Amino acid sequence: MASLRELADLTGGKVVGNPKLEINGVSEIQSGRSGTITFLSNPKYKKYVNNTAASAIITADKSVLTHFDGVLVDNPQLAFANVLDFFQDKPKIVWGIHQSATISDNTNISENVSIGPNCVIEDGVRIKENTVIGANTVLGRNVVVGTNCTLHSNIHVYHSCTIGNSCIIFSGTVIGSDGFGYVELDGIHHKTPQTGSVIIGDNVDIGANCSIDRGTIGDTFIGSGSKLDNLVHIAHNVKTGKGCLFAACVGIAGSVEIGDYCIFAGQSGVVPHVKIGDRAIFAARSGATKSLPGGKVYAGMPAREIREQNKKDAVLHEIDILKKRISKIENDA
Amino acid sequence: MASLRELADLTGGKVVGNPKLEINGVSEIQSGRSGTITFLSNPKYKKYVNNTAASAIITADKSVLTHFDGVLVDNPQLAFANVLDFFQDKPKIVWGIHQSATISDNTNISENVSIGPNCVIEDGVRIKENTVIGANTVLGRNVVVGTNCTLHSNIHVYHSCTIGNSCIIFSGTVIGSDGFGYVELDGIHHKTPQTGSVIIGDNVDIGANCSIDRGTIGDTFIGSGSKLDNLVHIAHNVKTGKGCLFAACVGIAGSVEIGDYCIFAGQSGVVPHVKIGDRAIFAARSGATKSLPGGKVYAGMPAREIREQNKKDAVLHEIDILKKRISKIENDA
Amino acid sequence: MASLRELADLTGGKVVGNPKLEINGVSEIQSGRSGTITFLSNPKYKKYVNNTAASAIITADKSVLTHFDGVLVDNPQLAFANVLDFFQDKPKIVWGIHQSATISDNTNISENVSIGPNCVIEDGVRIKENTVIGANTVLGRNVVVGTNCTLHSNIHVYHSCTIGNSCIIFSGTVIGSDGFGYVELDGIHHKTPQTGSVIIGDNVDIGANCSIDRGTIGDTFIGSGSKLDNLVHIAHNVKTGKGCLFAACVGIAGSVEIGDYCIFAGQSGVVPHVKIGDRAIFAARSGATKSLPGGKVYAGMPAREIREQNKKDAVLHEIDILKKRISKIENDA
Repeated sequence: MASLRELADLTGGKVVGNPKLEINGVSEIQSGRSGTITFLSNPKYKKYVNNTAASAIITADKSVLTHFDGVLVDNPQLAFANVLDFFQDKPKIVWGIHQSATISDNTNISENVSIGPNCVIEDGVRIKENTVIGANTVLGRNVVVGTNCTLHSNIHVYHSCTIGNSCIIFSGTVIGSDGFGYVELDGIHHKTPQTGSVIIGDNVDIGANCSIDRGTIGDTFIGSGSKLDNLVHIAHNVKTGKGCLFAACVGIAGSVEIGDYCIFAGQSGVVPHVKIGDRAIFAARSGATKSLPGGKVYAGMPAREIREQNKKDAVLHEIDILKKRISKIENDA
Repeated sequence: MASLRELADLTGGKVVGNPKLEINGVSEIQSGRSGTITFLSNPKYKKYVNNTAASAIITADKSVLTHFDGVLVDNPQLAFANVLDFFQDKPKIVWGIHQSATISDNTNISENVSIGPNCVIEDGVRIKENTVIGANTVLGRNVVVGTNCTLHSNIHVYHSCTIGNSCIIFSGTVIGSDGFGYVELDGIHHKTPQTGSVIIGDNVDIGANCSIDRGTIGDTFIGSGSKLDNLVHIAHNVKTGKGCLFAACVGIAGSVEIGDYCIFAGQSGVVPHVKIGDRAIFAARSGATKSLPGGKVYAGMPAREIREQNKKDAVLHEIDILKKRISKIENDA
Repeated sequence: MASLRELADLTGGKVVGNPKLEINGVSEIQSGRSGTITFLSNPKYKKYVNNTAASAIITADKSVLTHFDGVLVDNPQLAFANVLDFFQDKPKIVWGIHQSATISDNTNISENVSIGPNCVIEDGVRIKENTVIGANTVLGRNVVVGTNCTLHSNIHVYHSCTIGNSCIIFSGTVIGSDGFGYVELDGIHHKTPQTGSVIIGDNVDIGANCSIDRGTIGDTFIGSGSKLDNLVHIAHNVKTGKGCLFAACVGIAGSVEIGDYCIFAGQSGVVPHVKIGDRAIFAARSGATKSLPGGKVYAGMPAREIREQNKKDAVLHEIDILKKRISKIENDA
């Protein structure tokens, strides 16, 4: 429960209407519920304003608030994230090590740490304060996990990998499995030992059932502030910059270097040994097959600048026009 | 062991040949074994009929049974599914909670339930009768699992998610992890709290290592009777209709609405915030980049109606013809 | 620590320079460290030779060793794999069964076997000598695991599946889940029982979070010497030949037959019921939509021989030229 005034203070916004209006939760604008606050950011959803049953609205659009209680903010998405956080049901964390966990003698676990049932914490592991390890998670020899991290359930972080501070890793993810390296001789694929590790920066989120391989010699790096969705694959020796976004089902092949603030939409990918510049954006299902400069939007497979790709998709139509022009010439001749 | 008569009764078919013939199992037509029954549905496999060592055959094709014992049925695939079920080796379920499971005090677990080793069942969980939970599976706070479900091993269902009745979830799948939502401000990706949940209907099967994210505000819905293969990703706030099929490696992005009885072949996908009509079919690797009406077959990326897509693939050939026609005109001039 | 002489003996190479030079590890050529040995195979990296701080180099290129200590070998990649193996930090394996594992009475576990915490080993399982099973791994009824295998953590091998000798399976992988088979009748998808199993040959490596489905009637086969990267999906009744390579995120649909020594690059795939010949190579993101002969390189979706595919990609350029030629004819007329 919070008054509109309190929510305005929380979000750095201005109350429009009744500051004492009591709000008991949040709802989507298209399925708003009385007593809750909703938000409007995408203009596509403005059509729902008049019919929503929500009692208040967070928006940057003054015109909406002429007939509605609400909070006027600069960035409604960010404001709404704060309001969602305020109302969300947060479990009480029980600090301590569950009795069913298997903890090696030679570990260094800070005091305010929670380790769930059936976890396995191997020799030399270091877990820093305020970090939560979910059930059935395995941390291999000499793994380091920073402060304020949450590792969920059924995760395996292999030996010698390092997770920074304030990271979130969702269930089923595997970090530090061997890179895919073989040398073929006489029909036998000989395994190349993978002796590097994985180093993950601060404030990195990794979704469910991802895989991030350790480096062959050097390490695989995930830059601070990067966010990975589910089922993302990052191969050995990849180095990503700061603040990159990887949507679901993306695959980045071995030894790729990615700049800062790149965005990879769903099911996109990059072939091995290429370099992607800062702030490159890859559309869904695009595939970079060579090094590409930053600051541009790419689409298609092989990935091209999106304008060129769209032109390619228009070829079918052009062919039909050309056929008609040729027929006309032939008939006129 | 069953007689042909018994298998005919089981499948609602008619014996052709010796009703007392004893059958001890099933085999594929191309590698049939004496004493077993096989089946023929796809005409592509009819060539194997004369050489199969199987002792009997289930088919809708009368001509096959002129020289073969067998069972004549309307739907050989369905009949064969029943026969496979009859012969399959079913483990005896041991009801009860394994001593190594960690069960919170405040749970509501019906009597005929099996909970495997090392499971973690958190506060407020409800598990209904005749449901089996495999080893190392974690059910978060307030999860509800219906009757007659089988959840296999190393699964994590996050807090407050609901699984309907008669669902099967294969190992490694993660349900209810956070949706991929961030608000960027000054180079920082601020996490949007994901406060909704996942609601799965009845008779839903979900393959191995899938991920289904919880909704941001409202819930993610998987419609009753839908079936998901392995490594399928369903993002936050997706709503699917009844009886949809999602083959392996499909990715459905956030807030997509999918009608009833849609089919997504392997590695296909849909971009965020679009709507797919009832009974739309997407070919392998196709990608819907906008809302598309139902009742049609789509292919390609961006997905087009399959006829148009095939025409696009034929463009290469047309170009060669056009080049020749232009050269002829130029030479004639 | 090893002398250059010892490393030359290990790799079957020839010392060039000081045979007593002491080497304490390995490094990449572009970030070489004093005291270590590096290697040069890909000519693209030759530019780093003059500036690397590494103390010695393994190469097949004599000219590099005129001003550098090193080892001259025929196959520098293979030699380097051996050197990496020599220097890599190998954990001491503790043989025996962890007290927290749940082992059925009716199993056959050889003496030199290691079974990690919280493993579940069901009835009838056979594990042969020198095999290591990581934490939280589940082996279903009657599973057989050969000698010298390493199965990592949070793996589920379903009942009756067989793993050959000297296999490595990385964490999170699921083997033997049900194939995706349904028969539709009146809007209901009836599940086809999946009564076959999975048979994995010798020397097969399987990456993290893969899924390999059991066969419907017959079995799913992975040929000896094959290597799978992470997040690979192999559907029911697939049969692969010897020595195949499957890069990350590849999906092979049901009943596909794959010859020996095929290579599938990242995110490629094959539709159901087709046959791929020996030594076929599929480029990244290619998709085989019909049976294709071996010995060729394929690209695109639908997959075509790579030369034809490249020609298709060039069509955009050709169209522009054709437009100009037509305009010229029109203007001349």
